Amino acid sequence: MQYIEPLAKLIEHLRALPGIGSKTAARLAYHILDMEPAKAKALAQAIIEAKEKIGFCNTCFNLSDTNPCSICSSANRDHSIICVVEQPRDVAALERMRDYKGVYHVLHGVLSPLEGIGPEDIRIRELLLRLQNTTVKELIMATNPNIEGEATAMYIARLVKPAGIKVSRIAHGLPVGGDLEYADEVTLAKALENRREI
Amino acid sequence: MQYIEPLAKLIEHLRALPGIGSKTAARLAYHILDMEPAKAKALAQAIIEAKEKIGFCNTCFNLSDTNPCSICSSANRDHSIICVVEQPRDVAALERMRDYKGVYHVLHGVLSPLEGIGPEDIRIRELLLRLQNTTVKELIMATNPNIEGEATAMYIARLVKPAGIKVSRIAHGLPVGGDLEYADEVTLAKALENRREI
Repeated sequence: MQYIEPLAKLIEHLRALPGIGSKTAARLAYHILDMEPAKAKALAQAIIEAKEKIGFCNTCFNLSDTNPCSICSSANRDHSIICVVEQPRDVAALERMRDYKGVYHVLHGVLSPLEGIGPEDIRIRELLLRLQNTTVKELIMATNPNIEGEATAMYIARLVKPAGIKVSRIAHGLPVGGDLEYADEVTLAKALENRREI
Repeated sequence: MQYIEPLAKLIEHLRALPGIGSKTAARLAYHILDMEPAKAKALAQAIIEAKEKIGFCNTCFNLSDTNPCSICSSANRDHSIICVVEQPRDVAALERMRDYKGVYHVLHGVLSPLEGIGPEDIRIRELLLRLQNTTVKELIMATNPNIEGEATAMYIARLVKPAGIKVSRIAHGLPVGGDLEYADEVTLAKALENRREI
């Protein structure tokens, strides 16, 4: 004997989530069985509703329950600046800053020849189409600071620059609150290279 | 702006699970939004089904989708030995060992005066009733090796012993594969005290 069947099934489904191993999955499942029935039902309902109600904004391809999304349809945002990110969660991270007033474009991935992901697999075509149809002054490439993110930023920059649109890249350097001693060499080199007069 | 409403709701529900902070909850929610619709639905369904199908065995009070549970109704188990544990997950841990052939009794808690949990709040009465109605030779107290678990084991032992039932306690000692150097003093003292001739 192991777990009874409905419990085993629940554990199996929870284990499929990222960062959840079999011990954590079992712990979560036992917790769910311990919950008030109404709360467990609400959790299941939240999963179903999120899947049903949330789709992509047809302009920026961020997750949204409206189309266009609240950012793309806002009159308070500067629609001439587009920040290009890899994933919807990157938009959420940038929005938490409450500082950026432009709009976004979510690529849903990065170029990765090793994994067979080419320009046609991410939302580059949609970005180019968007640039043709609206007046955009600046494109901020905010893909992740790793090889794939860097390459994707460069690729898009090359495509867009001939049209006279300014393309910028978010700065590399030491994280605020970080420790010089523990910074890796590449980050340190970038931080020195990008030094500013104070 | 923060998260859109269905996403915020899903994150909030996931954050209510044990060991899931807001960052992990957001990561899980984004993963769920990325899943195939059928898989997400299956996860929600597994939660609902587990809650609906799983109840308590009326004999041992372990979680079960049948009543009595498969252990209590099994002819291959020794019904004269009852192992008393705190939680259903403890039964699962003991069953993984594949060595124990007796049956169980799940208390669903331990005595804890500080938290206001008395004998009437856990399944002690049901255990005594069970001992009256069946011939039981031995009660193995497998509550956790901490103050509450110890006190609960002692409390039940005192209640049961006058009826002539043997009561035993699982052994304390060094965990197998553990390191003497890192063992705490109490465990080490118990390990010495319970030494066996070889």
